[in-house]
Amino acid sequence: MDIAALRSAHPDHWNKAAAIRALTLDAVHAANSGHSGMPMGMADVATVLYEKHLKFDASAPNWPDRDRFILSAGHGSMLLYSLLYLTGYEGMTLDQIKNFRQWGAITAGHPENFLHDGIETTTGPLGQGISNAVGFAIAEEALRARFGKKAVDHHTYVIAGDGCLMEGVSHEAIGLAGRLGLGKLIVLWDNNNITIDGKVDLASRTDQVKRFRAEGWQVIEIDGHDPEEIDAALTKAKTGRRPTMIACKTHIALGHAAQDTSKGHGALTDADQMAAAKEAYGWTTGPFEVPADIKKAWEAIGKRGAEAHAEWKTRMGELSERRQAEFTRVMDGEVPKSLASRIRALKKQISEECPKVATRKSSEMVLEVVNPVMQETIGGSADLSGSNNTKSGDMTVFDEGNRKGRYIHYGIREHGMAAAMNGMALHGGIRPYGGTFMCFTDYARPAMRLAALMKVPSVFVMTHDSIGLGEDGPTHQPIEHLAISRATPNTNVFRPCDTVETAEAWELALTSKSTPSVLSLTRQGVPTLRTEHKQKNLTAQGAYVLADAEGKRQALLMATGSEVAIAMAARDLLQAEGIGTRVVSMPCWELFEEQDEAYRRKVLPAGPVRVAVEAAIRFGWDRWLYGERGKREKSGFVGMHGFGASAPAEVLYEQFGITAEAVAEKAKSLL
Amino acid sequence: MDIAALRSAHPDHWNKAAAIRALTLDAVHAANSGHSGMPMGMADVATVLYEKHLKFDASAPNWPDRDRFILSAGHGSMLLYSLLYLTGYEGMTLDQIKNFRQWGAITAGHPENFLHDGIETTTGPLGQGISNAVGFAIAEEALRARFGKKAVDHHTYVIAGDGCLMEGVSHEAIGLAGRLGLGKLIVLWDNNNITIDGKVDLASRTDQVKRFRAEGWQVIEIDGHDPEEIDAALTKAKTGRRPTMIACKTHIALGHAAQDTSKGHGALTDADQMAAAKEAYGWTTGPFEVPADIKKAWEAIGKRGAEAHAEWKTRMGELSERRQAEFTRVMDGEVPKSLASRIRALKKQISEECPKVATRKSSEMVLEVVNPVMQETIGGSADLSGSNNTKSGDMTVFDEGNRKGRYIHYGIREHGMAAAMNGMALHGGIRPYGGTFMCFTDYARPAMRLAALMKVPSVFVMTHDSIGLGEDGPTHQPIEHLAISRATPNTNVFRPCDTVETAEAWELALTSKSTPSVLSLTRQGVPTLRTEHKQKNLTAQGAYVLADAEGKRQALLMATGSEVAIAMAARDLLQAEGIGTRVVSMPCWELFEEQDEAYRRKVLPAGPVRVAVEAAIRFGWDRWLYGERGKREKSGFVGMHGFGASAPAEVLYEQFGITAEAVAEKAKSLL
Repeated sequence: MDIAALRSAHPDHWNKAAAIRALTLDAVHAANSGHSGMPMGMADVATVLYEKHLKFDASAPNWPDRDRFILSAGHGSMLLYSLLYLTGYEGMTLDQIKNFRQWGAITAGHPENFLHDGIETTTGPLGQGISNAVGFAIAEEALRARFGKKAVDHHTYVIAGDGCLMEGVSHEAIGLAGRLGLGKLIVLWDNNNITIDGKVDLASRTDQVKRFRAEGWQVIEIDGHDPEEIDAALTKAKTGRRPTMIACKTHIALGHAAQDTSKGHGALTDADQMAAAKEAYGWTTGPFEVPADIKKAWEAIGKRGAEAHAEWKTRMGELSERRQAEFTRVMDGEVPKSLASRIRALKKQISEECPKVATRKSSEMVLEVVNPVMQETIGGSADLSGSNNTKSGDMTVFDEGNRKGRYIHYGIREHGMAAAMNGMALHGGIRPYGGTFMCFTDYARPAMRLAALMKVPSVFVMTHDSIGLGEDGPTHQPIEHLAISRATPNTNVFRPCDTVETAEAWELALTSKSTPSVLSLTRQGVPTLRTEHKQKNLTAQGAYVLADAEGKRQALLMATGSEVAIAMAARDLLQAEGIGTRVVSMPCWELFEEQDEAYRRKVLPAGPVRVAVEAAIRFGWDRWLYGERGKREKSGFVGMHGFGASAPAEVLYEQFGITAEAVAEKAKSLL
Repeated sequence: MDIAALRSAHPDHWNKAAAIRALTLDAVHAANSGHSGMPMGMADVATVLYEKHLKFDASAPNWPDRDRFILSAGHGSMLLYSLLYLTGYEGMTLDQIKNFRQWGAITAGHPENFLHDGIETTTGPLGQGISNAVGFAIAEEALRARFGKKAVDHHTYVIAGDGCLMEGVSHEAIGLAGRLGLGKLIVLWDNNNITIDGKVDLASRTDQVKRFRAEGWQVIEIDGHDPEEIDAALTKAKTGRRPTMIACKTHIALGHAAQDTSKGHGALTDADQMAAAKEAYGWTTGPFEVPADIKKAWEAIGKRGAEAHAEWKTRMGELSERRQAEFTRVMDGEVPKSLASRIRALKKQISEECPKVATRKSSEMVLEVVNPVMQETIGGSADLSGSNNTKSGDMTVFDEGNRKGRYIHYGIREHGMAAAMNGMALHGGIRPYGGTFMCFTDYARPAMRLAALMKVPSVFVMTHDSIGLGEDGPTHQPIEHLAISRATPNTNVFRPCDTVETAEAWELALTSKSTPSVLSLTRQGVPTLRTEHKQKNLTAQGAYVLADAEGKRQALLMATGSEVAIAMAARDLLQAEGIGTRVVSMPCWELFEEQDEAYRRKVLPAGPVRVAVEAAIRFGWDRWLYGERGKREKSGFVGMHGFGASAPAEVLYEQFGITAEAVAEKAKSLL
């Protein structure tokens, strides 16, 4: 590249972009790690975006109607940190930049949404940001439809690299965005032709332009170092009714000796090469030093949106107080006051009627109560609506012609669904939930982990949660998936035993502000076991005594979900033989673990033999089988020891020995 | 559709295809579950494929040079079972068809590769089959380059539906196949415009033809019910140098009242509608009854390949005995005799030289020894070759111009990589291994689970296996991933502590015939701890005493991988205070669990306090912390309790308290 020509063509632009490049070089040099090339390559695009298009106010990072900027290529985090610092976001100080990638700094290796308000989403695992962005754009459309254009009217911008576009989830995201016609979603592709292993061509010859057009996107091709082309493309992108992909031809590590090479992707730390690059940029100040005029120009950009922000406030003030309060409530993620009483009423009704239904059906019964009073829910399923029971009767389908629709047909896109849900939750104003089979948490897993890491309360409705799924066989029968979800930090895994527990689990999931929930629900019918109505949400304690021993307490049965009924039947068998047996329902291990030890010991006292029953692998159960401390109880496990099989559910339970008789026998063998 | 016109246009063809449709209707009716519509819609395509193109010999399902047929849309399993039954595969009896989806039958809900030799791969989780197929096609190219066209020269055919093509993994698979120019891969897309939720248009408007062309595929569009068009398309597809997608416009549940509806996707069990459909087909025999002439015609098709099979045998006989033996060895998945001695020699050398290297580097050292003597390995990485250390010096890149290359640049496609690896292993003749970061087992997870279920010995090389990854931060730091892999049935998870254990782990992974392996390897350097050479593979027992207590045994430290060195340092601290301390290295829990209880108790005896150290979540460790039976030992855990952070590795170990001092303190607090 002829850097001199670039500089002289647009000197003001050049200097602003050079600030990003220089800060990146300095920060990576100081950390001796990181990714230099991407911020250096995309600095021009980012500068034009922030200077002329992005609607933002650096003094108000949480302004609800700001445009969202998502750095899907999260390894280029110094691009974002530079922009936040230069435009004057509070907290993103020069010291933070100097401490890039160090303990305690908010300038983590990859952008973490929970470390600074100016970071919209955590990125780094490739493909997630662009897929979150689809959720952001859905949230914007839904809120605009609900609250009007005066309250909500903004764009979602994404910078994505080849890595993001090679990941499978990008296919799901792009397809979904194209189908839903998300015209306010604009993706800037950093088309630099380089990956870690070498030229993109080593692994891919995808024609991205044709690919995006095949998905119904508008595509614009530009020189990513020409500010006029960038500006024109962004202007055009904003007018379209379809999502837009701007293919920005760029040079990774622009102006550095490593330009256009895979070495340029990583940490450029050579002092001489750094000096040479800065010289080419015309950058003469010392490390981390941005000339005052350039910093001032950037700070003016940071204030560019103040007026629009003020106008928005005025417009909001013109809404009725009720509308304003409702907008504030949903943006704050608060549930409506009526939710608790609605849930209680349902619990009471169920305790009286005692239906025998699958908990996926129970979940639908809860949604029929919840969705009418929580207009902020957006539900959906990855092409299993009828099986996941995720669509309540009041919901219509979200579509180009019906932005008030609150149900999304995600298609066979579990991963894209989960990532989009995270995006909606991050955007604010929406409570997303989405369904698939429990076994296909596998497909959604990277996004489910990010929900936990990012502290967003997405609700994953996972039905067909055991061999109770039956004939579809082992590919569809979760065995290790409860363990997988439970092993994930900051994730509440609910496996309710009946409709009452399902209602309680939903209440906890919907009131969570920073923890995602996995609802593990049965395909097969289960009896109502909570036949005595209690106002209190017993699931909130994670585990509780469902039925205590009559007579001397000799055995303690622990179970979750569909196996609680089996434990109760085993209790009948044991009590009939005079063996006092307590049954503990454990719908949420994580919440039980959070209780104090006194409560845990009250529920699981020392003394009786212990048998756990769960139609899943034992992995993790030892925590509860072995007691809190001191003498270990005799214990056993009734569950799965390997993959399932294809047969009717009741046959499978019998063949795999997960029966009341087996549980009773196991308990007796330990006495 | 005008069924009568179809019948009269090609009556012989029609009757053969009708046999598939009738058997499907009968089997689903008997099971009262399953998927009728897809086999009914694709019966014409499958009939022409089997009758005129697929190179197979029903009497020899394991003939190495057969064409592979992969039903990626696995829910349409009755299509495959019908074909296997009709063409006369041993074992696929009418009784099996009658017992569709029942306990003990080989006709599971979805095709399971381990239940019948005629089933090439397990499908059902959508997108897996088409992605396996890429691996099958790679294996064919590689083996043809190695053994010559006389030994290996066949095609891979796939039937895929909209579900497969919507899944993200299909994007990775299609992109990889396009890039690698896999001309002998032919995908038949069942373009029926229906998914479970309704019309495809509900969720997707992807132009699949343009999409495949953007990936460098040849695309042919046909009427999927016209045998002449099908035949012509297959003929053309076989001549191309690029992979081919044939878009087959079909009607789901053809001829049934549910034709062209989402209802038609599922189980069609209404007796009257079934009768009406059969009448339209001109099918007058009773349930499960195929007229003798039609069965005979199908059986002739089953014998069609016998001649080609015989010719192949003759050609093979013309190869040198050494070549024949080598071909047989690799197809049988046997390792070369020299492997064991090579591994032993490396172990000896390492025990003497005692390098301090990262175990990912150790893994490379092993590969440098293994790859030259095991020409059947095909390695690769999802764009992290330099980080995963997966490319040994002797390997060249597999490409259109170099089919003898044994290294694949998979691109940023972890999921597609894992699925392709499974395909290579299933094809036979290839030992696939592939690398990414341990954290991104998340992305590869659905295929890793299938490796376990299908019993294929894929080797997943997962580096950067803890917070030891350092600055990249929590998105890249595995915390729960060891637990996830360990919770998965039939998966050996190796976390070696040094180069010697890494060599032992590789030996076990490479000699495995039916269990996949996960190698969990460090980014950071670790010392050699196995300084005394032992010929025996100690890792084979899963856990063993690395250093015993001096004096009275009071403490027992358990650790894996990089934390074994920390446990050893803690032992030094404790021994210095006169506390006799044993250190147990536990590189593979699964193999330790397989030992008899006597061995496990010998390694982990009752008495001393127990402390486990692992830079991961505790989940699963209670199994070992609590002893085999009887009195529970006092125990503690030093490791992670939540997500990691971005900082240099040594800072993170310090900040998260995973240090020798912390381990020693924990042990002392328990005494």
